[in-house]
Amino acid sequence: MSMKTGTSRLAVMNFLNEVSGDFPDAISLASGRPAEAFFDLQRWLDAIPLYQREFASRRGLSHADAGRLLAQYGRTNGIVNEVIAGQLAQDEGVRGRSEHVVISAGCQEALALCMLSLCEDSNDVVIARDPTYIGMTGVADLHGIEIVPLHSKEDDKLAAELAEVAEKLRREGKRARALYLIPEFDNPTGTVLSLDARMAMLDVCAEQRIVVLEDNPYGMFRYEGERMQTMYALDRAGCVIYLFTYSKTLCPAVRVGGALVPDTLFGDAAAARALVANLGERKSFLTVNTSQLNQALIGGMLLAQDGSLRELVAPQLAHYRRNRDLLLAALEKEFADQRDVVRWNRPEGGFFLTMDLPFAFGQAEVLRCAREQHVIPMPLSFFSLTGTCQDSIRLAFSNVEPSLINEGVARLGRFVRECQEVCDAAV
Amino acid sequence: MSMKTGTSRLAVMNFLNEVSGDFPDAISLASGRPAEAFFDLQRWLDAIPLYQREFASRRGLSHADAGRLLAQYGRTNGIVNEVIAGQLAQDEGVRGRSEHVVISAGCQEALALCMLSLCEDSNDVVIARDPTYIGMTGVADLHGIEIVPLHSKEDDKLAAELAEVAEKLRREGKRARALYLIPEFDNPTGTVLSLDARMAMLDVCAEQRIVVLEDNPYGMFRYEGERMQTMYALDRAGCVIYLFTYSKTLCPAVRVGGALVPDTLFGDAAAARALVANLGERKSFLTVNTSQLNQALIGGMLLAQDGSLRELVAPQLAHYRRNRDLLLAALEKEFADQRDVVRWNRPEGGFFLTMDLPFAFGQAEVLRCAREQHVIPMPLSFFSLTGTCQDSIRLAFSNVEPSLINEGVARLGRFVRECQEVCDAAV
Repeated sequence: MSMKTGTSRLAVMNFLNEVSGDFPDAISLASGRPAEAFFDLQRWLDAIPLYQREFASRRGLSHADAGRLLAQYGRTNGIVNEVIAGQLAQDEGVRGRSEHVVISAGCQEALALCMLSLCEDSNDVVIARDPTYIGMTGVADLHGIEIVPLHSKEDDKLAAELAEVAEKLRREGKRARALYLIPEFDNPTGTVLSLDARMAMLDVCAEQRIVVLEDNPYGMFRYEGERMQTMYALDRAGCVIYLFTYSKTLCPAVRVGGALVPDTLFGDAAAARALVANLGERKSFLTVNTSQLNQALIGGMLLAQDGSLRELVAPQLAHYRRNRDLLLAALEKEFADQRDVVRWNRPEGGFFLTMDLPFAFGQAEVLRCAREQHVIPMPLSFFSLTGTCQDSIRLAFSNVEPSLINEGVARLGRFVRECQEVCDAAV
Repeated sequence: MSMKTGTSRLAVMNFLNEVSGDFPDAISLASGRPAEAFFDLQRWLDAIPLYQREFASRRGLSHADAGRLLAQYGRTNGIVNEVIAGQLAQDEGVRGRSEHVVISAGCQEALALCMLSLCEDSNDVVIARDPTYIGMTGVADLHGIEIVPLHSKEDDKLAAELAEVAEKLRREGKRARALYLIPEFDNPTGTVLSLDARMAMLDVCAEQRIVVLEDNPYGMFRYEGERMQTMYALDRAGCVIYLFTYSKTLCPAVRVGGALVPDTLFGDAAAARALVANLGERKSFLTVNTSQLNQALIGGMLLAQDGSLRELVAPQLAHYRRNRDLLLAALEKEFADQRDVVRWNRPEGGFFLTMDLPFAFGQAEVLRCAREQHVIPMPLSFFSLTGTCQDSIRLAFSNVEPSLINEGVARLGRFVRECQEVCDAAV
């Protein structure tokens, strides 16, 4: 049986899971999962009857009848759209129409729906930075959607490259339909896209009619610096779909995320409504509707928090900031005498930083690093669209015990020094 | 923006929703939703900590830590696979390997995953009876998968037609990859596929290497007659994927269903494992994993019920049987003097029956029937692959108030007599 899949990309992720499984005592700096310490299952489950009460009173139903209606099939695009639209506005400055919110079974579904809706013809192409998030490349691979990479490392060169790429695609008879970006605390790089780059890229997208898929799972976790406006908020042309998720602010198991479609699509309100309807049609044949229990949980939590998650995530934010600081301090100490060859960035938020090493770090190195030093980083090349980033790794600090960060970095330091000695000896 | 979608099929469903919305006082015999009276939200939510306790004790975790792990991301193909495999064996005689269970966000996702996995090439074709379930045709339409209909009304002609169709496809350079069937209490027809037909079709499928997608949402709801073996249980060749759901036995809002892949695929165990892996890869890029809260709810309910849902569904079964009997009695009475021109079947289970009328009943007639007689049946042509069934309707008895069935049928009777008078006058 031939299987045309995102196999290569997934194979490396499976490989990494296996490494973690084979070395359970290794310190993992590979997993970008949210910190479990803040998961409060019972509190969240208790939010469901809270939403049920509100649902009952709004519709003039008994509490029991409201429960029965919640347990039934329901509106494809969701039922807590208004309260979600309110939270996005309040917490992230993303002000959209609740009727343009499409609630999905986790943000991944919304991403897949958007890519499938936008790239219906075989010559429709998605543009993304290289490296980029594997959840996006997986959808493209599985459905035969071509991804064209942007190579610029410097923010101020991205818009020009985007324009060139779009132009080149047009000459080839293809259409650049979507641009996938994580402007805040990118996965995997941990970087923030500058305000100028956001505006310049929006101009190109408006001109070339490219829809920006702005994925923002980490936006609530900024540890320093001023909050930057989202591309959705900066957009004047109607070219940004905003992708949101509650997997990081609450927990992954709620599997509630979604897409906010702009008021108009390049100025055309009917086209935006048609896109919302098309996403719903696709969803109805994938997952019918997002679990109304899980939607009620989100709805109840947002009611309990007066529509904002800022206060709720404050302890997590403090925890992630502390982990980032511990990681940065440990790196400073461990690699003090190698600053000329080992470099890393200081992320202003999110879950990751990246590190450039003076040698290639791929599958073989992860395995050796886990076996010999009992620490697991993530090769950045796993995220590459073109086989680049061979000498870099991603370090996640979101779900590692604070007390293990120093030791993890010390082990990584030993591995790096040993590799360097081998390299030096070979020269 | 051009949109290549299952629009036409969905448009008629939307039309029907609009009719229901426009005439809220009409008695609906159109909706095949499960009866809400049996939804017990709080009881089901209370099952989550029940599963959490079991999960904790099995893994040697504290209750709180088990909750944190449940709230996290998890295994793509699910965590309650074993308890589900046990329930399928106990309740439905479907004995498969728990490692071959792929748990999905509702059965619709499993159906979509299977169709996409099996029909990866543009010449891969799905075969289905005409009329058939709209959730299947929607997936095919959205992803450009060709559906070839089986027209035979008689069970004992189906296998021969299937063999012919597969042969014809082969000559055209196409491959019949999957056969979609609801053998028990079919949606929309309400019929049961005979044991002989099941076996004969399995023989053809084994020979032609066609995978049967056996969808069985209504199998637990048999009101009379002997339980028949599922095609999965009858299969000796390794050609049946069994699709299951908890939307009807518990409630739709749990959004838990899935696929059980056979031990071997046409005798090849590695191919079966590869298919399980492929379904998981596809799922990981669609919904990542099915909500572990919802899985814990299913797991907890199954623990509480000693692994079987038979006892839990007994009151529902009695209710549905009573509704069926009320509907059949009302039809007998209402159409007593028209038995030569108005015919219907007596379903042994499930949610539906179908009725043949002496005139066409399509969109215009639904609208008139709702407006003039305040009753809403479902045109059977909405489910047709080829524009057939123009003179038939589907009557759902699952989610209608028992006290309204008589009146609903009386109204339908008035509509039918009026239409006939018009027809007669025209002759």
